[in-house]
Amino acid sequence: MSRLHSRRSWVESANGHPDFPLDNLPFGVFSPAGLAPRAGVAIGDYIFDLSAAGAAQLFTGDALRAANAATGEGLNALFALGSGPRRALRDALLALLDEASPRRDELLHRQADCRLHLPAHIGDYTDFYVGIHHAENVGKLFRPDNPLLPNYKYVPIGYHGRASTVGVNDMLVRRPLGQTLAPGNTAPNFGPSKRLDYELELGIWIGPGNDHGQPVPIGSSHEQVAGFCLLNDWSARDLQAWEYQPLGPFLSKSFATTVSPWVVTPEALEPFRQAQPPRPDGDPQPLPYLWDDHDQRTGALAIELEVLLLTNAMREAGLAPERLALSNTLNMYWTVGQMISHHTVNGCKLQAGDLLGSGTLSGPQRSQLGSLLELTEGGKNPLTLGNGETRTFLQDGDEIILRARCTREGFASIGFGECRGRVSAAL
Amino acid sequence: MSRLHSRRSWVESANGHPDFPLDNLPFGVFSPAGLAPRAGVAIGDYIFDLSAAGAAQLFTGDALRAANAATGEGLNALFALGSGPRRALRDALLALLDEASPRRDELLHRQADCRLHLPAHIGDYTDFYVGIHHAENVGKLFRPDNPLLPNYKYVPIGYHGRASTVGVNDMLVRRPLGQTLAPGNTAPNFGPSKRLDYELELGIWIGPGNDHGQPVPIGSSHEQVAGFCLLNDWSARDLQAWEYQPLGPFLSKSFATTVSPWVVTPEALEPFRQAQPPRPDGDPQPLPYLWDDHDQRTGALAIELEVLLLTNAMREAGLAPERLALSNTLNMYWTVGQMISHHTVNGCKLQAGDLLGSGTLSGPQRSQLGSLLELTEGGKNPLTLGNGETRTFLQDGDEIILRARCTREGFASIGFGECRGRVSAAL
Repeated sequence: MSRLHSRRSWVESANGHPDFPLDNLPFGVFSPAGLAPRAGVAIGDYIFDLSAAGAAQLFTGDALRAANAATGEGLNALFALGSGPRRALRDALLALLDEASPRRDELLHRQADCRLHLPAHIGDYTDFYVGIHHAENVGKLFRPDNPLLPNYKYVPIGYHGRASTVGVNDMLVRRPLGQTLAPGNTAPNFGPSKRLDYELELGIWIGPGNDHGQPVPIGSSHEQVAGFCLLNDWSARDLQAWEYQPLGPFLSKSFATTVSPWVVTPEALEPFRQAQPPRPDGDPQPLPYLWDDHDQRTGALAIELEVLLLTNAMREAGLAPERLALSNTLNMYWTVGQMISHHTVNGCKLQAGDLLGSGTLSGPQRSQLGSLLELTEGGKNPLTLGNGETRTFLQDGDEIILRARCTREGFASIGFGECRGRVSAAL
Repeated sequence: MSRLHSRRSWVESANGHPDFPLDNLPFGVFSPAGLAPRAGVAIGDYIFDLSAAGAAQLFTGDALRAANAATGEGLNALFALGSGPRRALRDALLALLDEASPRRDELLHRQADCRLHLPAHIGDYTDFYVGIHHAENVGKLFRPDNPLLPNYKYVPIGYHGRASTVGVNDMLVRRPLGQTLAPGNTAPNFGPSKRLDYELELGIWIGPGNDHGQPVPIGSSHEQVAGFCLLNDWSARDLQAWEYQPLGPFLSKSFATTVSPWVVTPEALEPFRQAQPPRPDGDPQPLPYLWDDHDQRTGALAIELEVLLLTNAMREAGLAPERLALSNTLNMYWTVGQMISHHTVNGCKLQAGDLLGSGTLSGPQRSQLGSLLELTEGGKNPLTLGNGETRTFLQDGDEIILRARCTREGFASIGFGECRGRVSAAL
């Protein structure tokens, strides 16, 4: 548990920093200008160079093992070590960066001068669908009277995504070409997607993993989590509508996925865990492999999620990005632990560096909708922006920025940094 | 092109070998007893040690580059080099192993004494659905009057599969646990799958890959193929029926996929290429990005595919495996080139070592059906085996063996070796 008062660091910009105070300490992989990639920890406006700190013999024991496992190649080996060494490294960093400790400015790089990389090699990427309001909103577009399919409240629905096209800030997302079926037509057209959309999701980085054939019990499923990020599951709605039956989304999603570069640890998020909101009256009891008292008492996360849009016109006019939605991870119908136990109940093997997406985390209110598909009711009702522009779906040059923030009375607030991607014109 | 008469090797067992004559030379990764994994080439009953041959300075130029790229870690770097160096290495091996060349028995290991490994690290695994007879047969179970969905003849349908659970011979496949919905019920049960099935597929190993955002044109799509294998897409039909809407198969497939360990090269398969069978009258013309004269003239493969079953009872009685089906890759509605161009038309990035599955390659006849789902009409009509046993779906102990063979008048026949996996009891 974090302290009741926020910790102070000799890195002055960390104190009161909206994302990266000393209480956060997310891991990432970065390159200082002209130098090779290395592992680091965000602290205020700076990055603390983990690799250099290890070489300077600032760690011992489990913390040293963890620091040595985090390299410029990626954090997979750190993730694989699990919570013990990760906590030891966090404790060592909390001490090293505390205002009572000697300054070590030689280990800091300005974030603004660094390039951030994908934090781990992704073995497999799985996207879930646990945002029940999103599932209802999308279902209503097809089945107004019966939006949720019969399996939804029993099965944490998920599908395999494409690992090779996951990237980090600042990602250029080329508008995909593909087949689409115009209303009333029976033969498809080919061309750039006209219904390009974003999806606001929580990303989960997998830690130790499991042996092939050995399910992860719900009681220990949280031990599999190495950390969290923001995830934008870019979606071409017109490609999706034509291709998705019977085997699910494919090219409508595989052109790009963007994640935020910093891995926020379960330790940093401990103060923001809470009981899973009770299931609405009449909802079925989950099957036993998905049900655990501890998971129900502590398995939900209270993370505020924000979507912002910056258009070319706004950029040229010097305007700030405009908020499109403010939602929360409490809109997850299933916990992360339930997602992991479901994923592995058939013996499927998870490995360190695998990435899970939550699915779009819309809330019940209009201001909480995590995609344009929902905000415009399938493109029927355009959105009017503050500068008078309108949008049904994304236009070239549009930049989508996701942010996340955790606040709780008596605890230091922490944030995730940004997840940024910008649409570029089709080939 | 191969010679009109089959080549002879100083490895006597290669001459007339059903799978691995000198004309084949498939690549793989193997461990001689007690030794570390290394790259090799199957020749008759032996494996030629590529790594040792490289160390003995038997290669030069492009052949040397290719041999050095093939290591015990996997063939990814060899795949990445593309067809030029691969052909150079093949030519060098054809000369080295020719009966006119000096014996090099010190570079041979008996296959029977070696363990075979997955030939490459799989970045992403994609499973297609291009076996039109399978799509029709499965569609008929749900929609007797309208088995194919409207997109089928326009879109090479595919979905992302799970890379982490792909394995090679002799794979033990644990019967998966999961949710299933009994007929007439509204709430699911939990337990071992009762409708465990195999699927007979062609596997395609990807070579150089493409940059993110850059589609692979149909005219050069075959340059992306590093080789071929057999693939068994194990499927839990009861899990699949309950989970697959709206996002497609997930746990019903992700528990296991088995591939054959040898990578049969495009060069070895050249004599067995032919024109894609003409589309039936009334079928639509594919969109231009999927249409290329050269691909239509040479993009089909004539590979005979066989499924065999060995049950515990047959094993105990000393009986040979029983053939369940004999089909052919000519049953693909789309060519491999079309699959690759479709996969990348949205900018999706393929990488060396990615794996594609064709989908189940059933033929139009009953003797050509590539899954039990089709052979038993959804489990309604049990199959009677030669020893009197019956099967609707697979039982524990059942071993599925896939084989493939290419024959053509005037050319040496080649085979793929076996793809073997055996069902073990649920946890």
